[in-house]
Amino acid sequence: MGPVTDQAPSDVLEGVLSLADLEVLAAERLSAVALAYVSGGAWDESTLAENVAAFRRRRLWPRVLVDVSRVDTRVRLLGREASMPVGLAPAAQQGLCHTEAELATTRAAASAGIPSVLSTFSTVSMEEVAAAAPGADRWFQLYVHHDRGITADLVARAAAAGFRVLVVTVDLPVIGYRQREIALGSTPAERLGSLEAYRQPDATLQDVLAGHIDASFDWADLERLAADSPLPVVVKGILRTDDARRTVDRGARGIIVSNHGGRQLDRVPATIDALEPVAQAVVGTGTEVYLDGGVRRGLDVATALALGARAVFLGRPYLYALAIDGERGVARALAHLRGELERTMALLGAPGLADLDRSLVTE
Amino acid sequence: MGPVTDQAPSDVLEGVLSLADLEVLAAERLSAVALAYVSGGAWDESTLAENVAAFRRRRLWPRVLVDVSRVDTRVRLLGREASMPVGLAPAAQQGLCHTEAELATTRAAASAGIPSVLSTFSTVSMEEVAAAAPGADRWFQLYVHHDRGITADLVARAAAAGFRVLVVTVDLPVIGYRQREIALGSTPAERLGSLEAYRQPDATLQDVLAGHIDASFDWADLERLAADSPLPVVVKGILRTDDARRTVDRGARGIIVSNHGGRQLDRVPATIDALEPVAQAVVGTGTEVYLDGGVRRGLDVATALALGARAVFLGRPYLYALAIDGERGVARALAHLRGELERTMALLGAPGLADLDRSLVTE
Amino acid sequence: MGPVTDQAPSDVLEGVLSLADLEVLAAERLSAVALAYVSGGAWDESTLAENVAAFRRRRLWPRVLVDVSRVDTRVRLLGREASMPVGLAPAAQQGLCHTEAELATTRAAASAGIPSVLSTFSTVSMEEVAAAAPGADRWFQLYVHHDRGITADLVARAAAAGFRVLVVTVDLPVIGYRQREIALGSTPAERLGSLEAYRQPDATLQDVLAGHIDASFDWADLERLAADSPLPVVVKGILRTDDARRTVDRGARGIIVSNHGGRQLDRVPATIDALEPVAQAVVGTGTEVYLDGGVRRGLDVATALALGARAVFLGRPYLYALAIDGERGVARALAHLRGELERTMALLGAPGLADLDRSLVTE
Amino acid sequence: MGPVTDQAPSDVLEGVLSLADLEVLAAERLSAVALAYVSGGAWDESTLAENVAAFRRRRLWPRVLVDVSRVDTRVRLLGREASMPVGLAPAAQQGLCHTEAELATTRAAASAGIPSVLSTFSTVSMEEVAAAAPGADRWFQLYVHHDRGITADLVARAAAAGFRVLVVTVDLPVIGYRQREIALGSTPAERLGSLEAYRQPDATLQDVLAGHIDASFDWADLERLAADSPLPVVVKGILRTDDARRTVDRGARGIIVSNHGGRQLDRVPATIDALEPVAQAVVGTGTEVYLDGGVRRGLDVATALALGARAVFLGRPYLYALAIDGERGVARALAHLRGELERTMALLGAPGLADLDRSLVTE
Repeated sequence: MGPVTDQAPSDVLEGVLSLADLEVLAAERLSAVALAYVSGGAWDESTLAENVAAFRRRRLWPRVLVDVSRVDTRVRLLGREASMPVGLAPAAQQGLCHTEAELATTRAAASAGIPSVLSTFSTVSMEEVAAAAPGADRWFQLYVHHDRGITADLVARAAAAGFRVLVVTVDLPVIGYRQREIALGSTPAERLGSLEAYRQPDATLQDVLAGHIDASFDWADLERLAADSPLPVVVKGILRTDDARRTVDRGARGIIVSNHGGRQLDRVPATIDALEPVAQAVVGTGTEVYLDGGVRRGLDVATALALGARAVFLGRPYLYALAIDGERGVARALAHLRGELERTMALLGAPGLADLDRSLVTE
Repeated sequence: MGPVTDQAPSDVLEGVLSLADLEVLAAERLSAVALAYVSGGAWDESTLAENVAAFRRRRLWPRVLVDVSRVDTRVRLLGREASMPVGLAPAAQQGLCHTEAELATTRAAASAGIPSVLSTFSTVSMEEVAAAAPGADRWFQLYVHHDRGITADLVARAAAAGFRVLVVTVDLPVIGYRQREIALGSTPAERLGSLEAYRQPDATLQDVLAGHIDASFDWADLERLAADSPLPVVVKGILRTDDARRTVDRGARGIIVSNHGGRQLDRVPATIDALEPVAQAVVGTGTEVYLDGGVRRGLDVATALALGARAVFLGRPYLYALAIDGERGVARALAHLRGELERTMALLGAPGLADLDRSLVTE
Repeated sequence: MGPVTDQAPSDVLEGVLSLADLEVLAAERLSAVALAYVSGGAWDESTLAENVAAFRRRRLWPRVLVDVSRVDTRVRLLGREASMPVGLAPAAQQGLCHTEAELATTRAAASAGIPSVLSTFSTVSMEEVAAAAPGADRWFQLYVHHDRGITADLVARAAAAGFRVLVVTVDLPVIGYRQREIALGSTPAERLGSLEAYRQPDATLQDVLAGHIDASFDWADLERLAADSPLPVVVKGILRTDDARRTVDRGARGIIVSNHGGRQLDRVPATIDALEPVAQAVVGTGTEVYLDGGVRRGLDVATALALGARAVFLGRPYLYALAIDGERGVARALAHLRGELERTMALLGAPGLADLDRSLVTE
Repeated sequence: MGPVTDQAPSDVLEGVLSLADLEVLAAERLSAVALAYVSGGAWDESTLAENVAAFRRRRLWPRVLVDVSRVDTRVRLLGREASMPVGLAPAAQQGLCHTEAELATTRAAASAGIPSVLSTFSTVSMEEVAAAAPGADRWFQLYVHHDRGITADLVARAAAAGFRVLVVTVDLPVIGYRQREIALGSTPAERLGSLEAYRQPDATLQDVLAGHIDASFDWADLERLAADSPLPVVVKGILRTDDARRTVDRGARGIIVSNHGGRQLDRVPATIDALEPVAQAVVGTGTEVYLDGGVRRGLDVATALALGARAVFLGRPYLYALAIDGERGVARALAHLRGELERTMALLGAPGLADLDRSLVTE
């Protein structure tokens, strides 16, 4: 909490003035296969583009003559304070971007005072991550395995390793049709972190996913999972209001409005277009609603909060920052985003997150 | 019926990841005249482009946590089961694309377990097609001739040759103004298949059409034709709800919402924009409503079904596949489309076609 | 009246398949100053572009199974039959395009059986035009002069020379801000036709207009003019419904919905966007409503008639045709447009102009 | 007051036919840093572009047959007559553009008979400006300083120097995120005019702003300021209707609907999109509502007045004109804009500003 810091933007990654610019720099450092994996979307990539474009279409209506000499970006997320309403979305195989992989991103998030979500398919195991960043607000993302024993084991290990929230991904019963990946060949999966014990030699990441995911996982299964879980469950991948209500009914404590970064079904709505109806559908239930997809600017964070999100999760931009400069790159990207958010709040006349009300945004 | 097959997309025509990409490959193999004939539209070709663009404008709202471990694309079309809700639309003079012409496309459709519609102006005669693919679900497309005796003869021959459905085209009383064809010169009609007996030496395809079509054919004529036909009648070329209702009143069993692939009147709506009102206009009458025009993706097939189509008919993409690799090319294109459709259904949370309900699509 | 003629489009100006293509050919034959004068619009030329674009935005919903073996494009315009619902809009100084100037265009219109409107600022005088095309349906366009005696003299001469209708232009109290003309220098006015007697040596066309027009001409003046005129009065340049009603109240018999081809005020609506409200505002009064601006296709003519126009007036395209090939060029352009209109009507299921009803068009 | 002068447009800055063209010419004369400072906007510069685009989207519906032989652009602004409804918006550090800086622009405005607003951060002091243009209608723009004593001193000096109106900017509690400026380095502030006494050596303009502005300034402070001010207060930077009403309640006499030329928060609405609701919110209170942002054409001025503005303020275009040709350049730019406005009014059928009614504009 404090005044908007005017010098912050200029020293992030020397010359990078927008998270949207990171992709170009990262592209120079990533292999073609890794770049396709990180940056690509499904089918014609229309949702990939829409996630960003839909934020830009919205108009902001700032209030004036509010005391914004101090702005406060702090928020409680499922009971723990974050320094700003931003987390790191789960992303598989961060070793494709940097040798320190999830160790670097988790540490950067911890330094920034925000949560990070570790993927089931991380390069580094959850226990290694826990050891490297014990005080971090670590969440664990779960893909449900065909073998429910393996699933139960993953959840138990996550709880034992101090992960605080269980993020269950529900929009990947099968893999989306990702043309860039298919065109460039499959992504190697040399280390499989938490699942290393189950890894088949020479299996690609695509093989691993296809062999892992249980496409029959349904609402009843979710209810059992939530009931059995020692950790609060957040469901990731909701776009519909009926699904949102059902998610809450089955015991989830949070929802991430997500289209998997445009990597699953194409032509689904931008997440910012789906957010508000979902948030309104569960209003009054105590469910926390988050969003990922298309967040590039502090303007986007403020927009999502004004439309009902409690926080947003950042995706590709932090992977690019990781590729460019490891933990330090991610830290700088987060500092930049925080600077933009603070400046946006000041200019919106919203010194605190609760001031980001619905009247500030129109489509 | 079965699980989504993950390897399917990558082996169709080696490197072709979308039916939309087939045109470029086909263009290398077709003469300029044939390419203009197959790919061109009418006037400014705005409807040609709109057919594709209107599908892309729609947004899909997937359900999650549905058991999609098996998806089933089977459908009954006028009483016979098809393996998926896709057929081959009628297209004249397929000999322009490949020496095996309609023999290849009919066989490929039969292998795929879907119907194909033979044009009145096919290169190969209906009897030859019947002999080459006796077990295929063959439909016959009828252009009504000035001489009603010739028309009656065509219908009788189609029934005798085992064609199962009569598709009567009603949107070509005169030929559309097709600039590409005019600019490049007329298309030769060296073989006229079912109409070979009537062929004038040196007549172009344009001459044949102009000499054949009865521009006075009207609703009363349709009613007589339907009453006399030994085959169930499907009317192709409907865009208006009033025409749709009248079509049913005059005895048709099915309707193809079509703008003739953008080859007739320009600036008419994209077929996906016309579909839903037409489907609602005849709901409860037992009429089956189909669509052609702009189908390039499994996403498109699912969209059309959610908006009221029982099946769609594929046009240019299969002609390009035919030009590229004959029967095998068409088979691969159909396998690719099936793969996309299965994946789309799984990701929509729709394991069966009946699950493709109206709530999945917005404009 | 007769069947749609299939060969017509291909022989108009050898290779020109759309009136929109004429500008390029004409540009090679016109001086830069003349081209700027003919083709340019006002300010940013947004209305110039919109006139064409707004037609293209509309969607046509054809009827099927209507007997269109014969289509009839004839229409009565203020009591005289035209062979199709198209006329030639007034255009000043056609000598810039061709030495035969208005003689050529009037003769071409007469051959085509349609009216042409002679500008006050024609290159050739009204008496010369009358002598060259005595049987033509000639209308005279009037700019009201500061000196009402000159105005009265022009009207009397027009009536004496057999002009049948008086078209009073009301949207040029001052000249629009035409950047292309200003950038390239003023247009010479070497011959001033009907006004030759009043011509100042070395006066440019811009000088002539500025010196001629009475910017104080108002509704009361119009009422007097209409009352005194031996010819029925058509008012050209109406876009608003209130102005349309007033025009009728003051004695006009017709209205041309026009924005002066985008040459006067910029950002005014496309004429096809203004047409329907104007037509509805005067429905039942016997007033004939016409449109000019943006007509390039038979599709446009049919659209305008479906939205309430009795006929349209063609502008720049005939001037380009005049520049390319004189009277013969204009005749060919008109034949081409007639062919497109007939084909459009057949494909719309509208054998006569009265069949072009409101249900055929949506925006 | 008088007839539209036809020759005016052609002699402004020789070949410049639109104020939008001035940027290119100015770019050749300005340093990269100065150009970035003058022309840049905040974040993605979407509001910068929208300010102009939103004017162009509007449609004008001209009246005809109104006597426009004389048009009158005069208007009273807070009790003093201006020759047209246009003023010069405040802009800091005009010495970046021309050595005569605010002396030149104030004199040009005075010659044109319109008000100009001097920035708190002018290059030349308010006393020097007053001495150079004693008869000019000079307004003073106030940024509120942390030290309220300095603020009070500035207001007292402005009143003493004959400034007539106090324009309080409220949309800059912190500086917008201006990427162009950051990319090119800070802008030097070699002379600080009215604040020269407080200048730190080597401080950049960005430092000066950041050190000056009181981000805690709020509604109560405004109320006190307005009550204490010897000059009528106009509040600049309002976009919301609730803020507009509050502004009036706290004692302001005028409102400038402004987004600071797209230099503060990005994605805020174009000012012409925000104008009408603001104007309606304070209708009947006697408050004068102005607009700045995106004004490039006489069409824009007329549009803003039809939607409720009493006058508009010009920004970047006059700075470019200043850079190109000093006082003479600004004078020519204003003459050009006046010519466009007069012509627009004549063509709209609006001889006086009161005739610019709401019916002339649609979106």
